[in-house]
Amino acid sequence: MEKILKKILEDNKKFYKDGKVADYIPALGKANIEDCGITIIDKDKNIHSVGDYNKKFTIQSISKIITLMLAIMDKGFEEVFQIVGYEGTERPFNTISYLESEKVKKAINPMLNSGAIAVTSLIKGDGEKKFDRILELVKVLALNSKIDYDREVYKSEKDTGDRNKAIAYLMKSRGIINGDIESTLDSYFKQCSININTIDLANIAFSIANRFEDVDLESHIDKKKLSSLLISIMVHSGMYNFSGEWSAKVGIPSKSGVAGGVLSVVPDKYGIGFFGPSLDENGNSILGYKVIGELSNELDLNIY
Amino acid sequence: MEKILKKILEDNKKFYKDGKVADYIPALGKANIEDCGITIIDKDKNIHSVGDYNKKFTIQSISKIITLMLAIMDKGFEEVFQIVGYEGTERPFNTISYLESEKVKKAINPMLNSGAIAVTSLIKGDGEKKFDRILELVKVLALNSKIDYDREVYKSEKDTGDRNKAIAYLMKSRGIINGDIESTLDSYFKQCSININTIDLANIAFSIANRFEDVDLESHIDKKKLSSLLISIMVHSGMYNFSGEWSAKVGIPSKSGVAGGVLSVVPDKYGIGFFGPSLDENGNSILGYKVIGELSNELDLNIY
Amino acid sequence: MEKILKKILEDNKKFYKDGKVADYIPALGKANIEDCGITIIDKDKNIHSVGDYNKKFTIQSISKIITLMLAIMDKGFEEVFQIVGYEGTERPFNTISYLESEKVKKAINPMLNSGAIAVTSLIKGDGEKKFDRILELVKVLALNSKIDYDREVYKSEKDTGDRNKAIAYLMKSRGIINGDIESTLDSYFKQCSININTIDLANIAFSIANRFEDVDLESHIDKKKLSSLLISIMVHSGMYNFSGEWSAKVGIPSKSGVAGGVLSVVPDKYGIGFFGPSLDENGNSILGYKVIGELSNELDLNIY
Amino acid sequence: MEKILKKILEDNKKFYKDGKVADYIPALGKANIEDCGITIIDKDKNIHSVGDYNKKFTIQSISKIITLMLAIMDKGFEEVFQIVGYEGTERPFNTISYLESEKVKKAINPMLNSGAIAVTSLIKGDGEKKFDRILELVKVLALNSKIDYDREVYKSEKDTGDRNKAIAYLMKSRGIINGDIESTLDSYFKQCSININTIDLANIAFSIANRFEDVDLESHIDKKKLSSLLISIMVHSGMYNFSGEWSAKVGIPSKSGVAGGVLSVVPDKYGIGFFGPSLDENGNSILGYKVIGELSNELDLNIY
Repeated sequence: MEKILKKILEDNKKFYKDGKVADYIPALGKANIEDCGITIIDKDKNIHSVGDYNKKFTIQSISKIITLMLAIMDKGFEEVFQIVGYEGTERPFNTISYLESEKVKKAINPMLNSGAIAVTSLIKGDGEKKFDRILELVKVLALNSKIDYDREVYKSEKDTGDRNKAIAYLMKSRGIINGDIESTLDSYFKQCSININTIDLANIAFSIANRFEDVDLESHIDKKKLSSLLISIMVHSGMYNFSGEWSAKVGIPSKSGVAGGVLSVVPDKYGIGFFGPSLDENGNSILGYKVIGELSNELDLNIY
Repeated sequence: MEKILKKILEDNKKFYKDGKVADYIPALGKANIEDCGITIIDKDKNIHSVGDYNKKFTIQSISKIITLMLAIMDKGFEEVFQIVGYEGTERPFNTISYLESEKVKKAINPMLNSGAIAVTSLIKGDGEKKFDRILELVKVLALNSKIDYDREVYKSEKDTGDRNKAIAYLMKSRGIINGDIESTLDSYFKQCSININTIDLANIAFSIANRFEDVDLESHIDKKKLSSLLISIMVHSGMYNFSGEWSAKVGIPSKSGVAGGVLSVVPDKYGIGFFGPSLDENGNSILGYKVIGELSNELDLNIY
Repeated sequence: MEKILKKILEDNKKFYKDGKVADYIPALGKANIEDCGITIIDKDKNIHSVGDYNKKFTIQSISKIITLMLAIMDKGFEEVFQIVGYEGTERPFNTISYLESEKVKKAINPMLNSGAIAVTSLIKGDGEKKFDRILELVKVLALNSKIDYDREVYKSEKDTGDRNKAIAYLMKSRGIINGDIESTLDSYFKQCSININTIDLANIAFSIANRFEDVDLESHIDKKKLSSLLISIMVHSGMYNFSGEWSAKVGIPSKSGVAGGVLSVVPDKYGIGFFGPSLDENGNSILGYKVIGELSNELDLNIY
Repeated sequence: MEKILKKILEDNKKFYKDGKVADYIPALGKANIEDCGITIIDKDKNIHSVGDYNKKFTIQSISKIITLMLAIMDKGFEEVFQIVGYEGTERPFNTISYLESEKVKKAINPMLNSGAIAVTSLIKGDGEKKFDRILELVKVLALNSKIDYDREVYKSEKDTGDRNKAIAYLMKSRGIINGDIESTLDSYFKQCSININTIDLANIAFSIANRFEDVDLESHIDKKKLSSLLISIMVHSGMYNFSGEWSAKVGIPSKSGVAGGVLSVVPDKYGIGFFGPSLDENGNSILGYKVIGELSNELDLNIY
């Protein structure tokens, strides 16, 4: 496996040139555009890592999977999907205009910023407690108790978070979300700033692929149903408005973050964590697309 | 004149039944739906008042004329219209979705909430100073130094102001406005809560109709140009998304507020202040439409 | 008057360089970009013409005033404004997307393509009869029985009319218009292709300014009400999505066409016809804006 | 298998009451709302049919899978996806407004009416040839040379097809599609009117599930890649704006039609054809949702 991975990384790492690192906050702009690392955990829980697998990066939108999971554990499937939908969309991650229509009663899906903020608003815990519980779940799934968030990134996210503020207050005015908006946003900015590496990501991915079999979720939730739901959400909206094309060309349910991370789940088989901060125009890791795509071909992992 | 006014009021006051008072904040909901008063000031500065002309109500959106005026006096025509446009629109006063498009570089017009918040952001003065200057200008134009704002209405506006907050932060994220959003919003909520009666309104209207001839604006602004601009803005967007129909059917440049006030300007002739809190579906005073419409016919005031 | 006009034309004709001629159909692209002519008819019916006043050009969108007028004479104010509204809009002339919303029951205004097509659908007459009646009205208002339409332009309009076809069929599917769409569109393309010069335009404008006093409309319509309505519609939407700015800066109710014509009405005073095919980004004649704007200042014609 | 199917049908057939049959054209309104039938073909090509499996109904939107397949065989993956995208959407099947934006260069996906019309425009064949080739492919995949289209339904589709006409002409004006619009639309209306039963549907579904192994496609296309692509498109947009929720709750790639048909593919395992004309608010068969959902649970067919 390491051999295959090395070859694929070697063959594709040059493509970092076709993208650029996120620069909407200074901390992200400092990333090394050539970085490229991958970790795969197989059915037998063997861990295969190649490249920059121990470099830290912020989890960003991949945290949306975690908050969705925690909200469902806190409130149940039904209550969560009363304020957020299941559908993919061609709209960008920070879309806001659709929330104006009186016909709209929920955020389109939990992977959009609007949907993720809505989901976060449901998570139990006042003030900082909300985020503490999210961070705790990340540690449990990643099997890494040392995970923390990056204060500098968090501060930058908060300072440039006007668009997310607008989204949150519009949803409040439309009656989609309730409660203290400022503390929900504070948690949202913090959760995006959680620092991880590809091993952490692969562990989270494997926990989903493996139906949370070894994880103590401290909840009576149906683990199989929860993992299936998370996978189907990733399929429809995990890769921003490239999710459909990712399905057609890669065929592995995945979720990406703007710092270059990609979490991929091959149901009942593999958990994959990838890192490569050079992004395409949709905000997905360019190297992630190339490498995971080739891996899918090589190991016949396309689920369709 | 009083006779004509009395007759028109008498004939039309029954139509209050076709509308209802604004109720998005409790303070407005307490208005007496049957109230109806009018004040007209003629070329010779004679004041004619009939009905509930001395009842107090909050100025609400009519303040948008005052803030536009002050912003122009502070920054000049050009700078103001770099962040706000001149065009009418079929969209509602609290429209937000249009601000998402990358092609949009300014608020549509200064009478929408978005445009009025943008305009307020330009007015000189830090913190409470901004509002103090607005209130001062209202006093000067209304020839009434006792005018103040209603604390209860202000508090309600602020508490239910999530939509306006969303609008403001979206404009900030799009680079349309700058500076301290919270203090701009605070001023916006206060200015909507200024307490006036129809005499105050008529005085303000007359000052515009009379090209600010007797007003010391403490500014080198071209008074004729300023009054023409305000009148043309009222024509295109003063009556929400009923402005075109108001032009076609009434033909007098006007601006309404959700508490039931209407300010009407017959250029070089009359200043009119009206009050009737029963609103139609567009948020305009139903009695205002009936009474000012009939007055326009009676005195041949249609400018077209 | 001729002296004033000559001076204004002389001072401004250089600005043709800031625009370009319409080129979406070949026939329009052949226009001479430097052409510039004006005709003004005063209260005493004196005709003052300067520059290229006898050059022919197609009436294009200015015909929307004529079709609106004829539809009102055919069906009355009420029936017409059941399928078309009065409001200005920041949307472009060929906007279609707003027609998708179930809340929308009419075209925004009769000066948009959608609104004009809707209005045309109401005009009496089967097949070619519809257009014949429109052409006849143009002749009557322009005092020129020789006016005809340009076959080449008509053919080009028709061949490139897919967007208008889409607009018409969408309105039909939404229940806004009825009847034979193809013949309505055929009339629409023909009426845009009517050939006129500035004298014709000025005569039409004067007939409106003069409340159709000398015109036999073969209808019991209230002529004063009709002229006021047309003027207010021009104010709100005559200059595309520049109508509000035109009001603020020129202050004379006007309607423009993409071949470079402008029809301007100073109520009860002047009828003005202008021609200058160099267009700004909104599709209005650049020289028209300069020349009519300066004329407005010079003769104090701003109605606000 | 028949036993399981019978039990599921028995348990669920009462739910027809929660929906209603399509009625936008008279022919569809005549369907028997209680009809319910299913056919499943397993890996060993055994055919299991229960209920109203031999009732004829029109294929409607399920034909979009066939036309996508034929267009790809005619023009290749790349050329097809230059005018149509891969993304799911929360928009309804007949959405048109998104096509106005200048940023939009393609239809969102091939399962929307816009996307399907675009795809049809690419299929080789002039005039009626286009449709003849589509019908031929349906016959081949369904292993049924007697399949034909319903003239009455076709005529109705055509007569009420104004919205689709608008969509087609808007796409033409935007440069997304070319060629003779009327013949493309004619083919589109005909292909929606093809008459089939659940056995035909199951055969088509099985051909996809089985990677077209036994089918002579008369094309050098990569059969595995083609079937994967069709499945991923079904996942993202096969069930209208319920596709994401269908994935989350049923987990079997499917495509529905407004006459009540559902085609479902369990990759490498089963081909399923379902018929039940009682529709939910999204236009999907209510009984299809219930029955296929329970089947998915019962046989553990959820692919996530």
